[in-house]
Amino acid sequence: MRHFTIELEELNQKLLQMGGLVEQAIHRSVRALLEQDRDLAEEVIRDEPKINRMEMEIDGLVTRLLALRQPVARDLRLLTAALKINNDLERIGDLANHIAERSLSLMHHPLVKPMTDIPKMASLVQSMLLKCLDAFVNSDADLAHTVLLSDAEVDLLRDGVYSELLEIMQRDPSVLTAAIDLIFVARNLERIGDHATNIAEDVVFLVKGIDVRHHAEQTESA
Amino acid sequence: MRHFTIELEELNQKLLQMGGLVEQAIHRSVRALLEQDRDLAEEVIRDEPKINRMEMEIDGLVTRLLALRQPVARDLRLLTAALKINNDLERIGDLANHIAERSLSLMHHPLVKPMTDIPKMASLVQSMLLKCLDAFVNSDADLAHTVLLSDAEVDLLRDGVYSELLEIMQRDPSVLTAAIDLIFVARNLERIGDHATNIAEDVVFLVKGIDVRHHAEQTESA
Repeated sequence: MRHFTIELEELNQKLLQMGGLVEQAIHRSVRALLEQDRDLAEEVIRDEPKINRMEMEIDGLVTRLLALRQPVARDLRLLTAALKINNDLERIGDLANHIAERSLSLMHHPLVKPMTDIPKMASLVQSMLLKCLDAFVNSDADLAHTVLLSDAEVDLLRDGVYSELLEIMQRDPSVLTAAIDLIFVARNLERIGDHATNIAEDVVFLVKGIDVRHHAEQTESA
Repeated sequence: MRHFTIELEELNQKLLQMGGLVEQAIHRSVRALLEQDRDLAEEVIRDEPKINRMEMEIDGLVTRLLALRQPVARDLRLLTAALKINNDLERIGDLANHIAERSLSLMHHPLVKPMTDIPKMASLVQSMLLKCLDAFVNSDADLAHTVLLSDAEVDLLRDGVYSELLEIMQRDPSVLTAAIDLIFVARNLERIGDHATNIAEDVVFLVKGIDVRHHAEQTESA
């Protein structure tokens, strides 16, 4: 029987691998939107089952480790955190899929606005995702904190996209459906940021034993 | 030391209690929207921390039971399911809170459409929520299956709300922001339905050992 630490390392690797798939899905879905690239959007949609299978595999691995190793204290918290992070990653995959679907519905529509805020939001949430996973595997609470700080910036960018699109719609009702699609894309990116924030909160809890969920504002001003 | 079965019963009770808070939040937020009742919306927002505290309490209870009881097989699956369900309930609470916020922003705006589909969606997702929690505490996979079947109906209602609002916006751009608020309310209700579906899938997995996540369509046609 292998050592528990090796099994935990395997779990970390799988979570990172899943994080990689999910990060790629975000990247591709946003590129599909910006470059009106149908193939890329379809790749994201086609690859979603991979992410879903990976979620079930990781769930199975954690449940097996809980049963076989009967961990306590930190190891137990680590495994329950892994379950949550796995769930957050799968939902991020879902959101990237939604963006890919919106990009398909926008495919034959001229772009309603110059695309600057949406790629900015996308690269911000991608970097949040990479950081929170790094923070998890390296038990780095400071890095996790930086993710918590980015959440407000994502919200600001989303507000900017929203009010700009509203103005465009008011001037030209013919772009309504396309503009609403873009509002949903911004909302999906914001929610990806929320999931990265959830993961970062789990990491802080794991490392410091402080539950920062539901009062992130205190954390941010600390 | 108390028996494990008593502790599991306590966990069930807490999850039901949390489910009750969350169901009340949905009910109130939608009534606040329909009746333009500011007090009710503010109650939902004021009570959200209760739901968040309850989530942390249930997480703590499950982690303690995992550590102290070192459960295996079905008991272990039950506890990991409880963690997920707890998380879904907290997110439903968040979504009810979003609806309450939208209802505040719609407070002084004349209703943009006769409100029939949104209350229909609300009562459907409320009943899905009650059923999936019932199914969980009674290990009733058949009841959980009925929840999976309702998900498509929620999506249909959401599509109806969406296309009706789009028409209204095209006729009268002055209602744009109000109509977009309502599109988001419908989207929030749809997501509440998705979370109830997640819970129902966890119950089927728990009772039958079959993972119906990510291929619910097969389940539905079975």
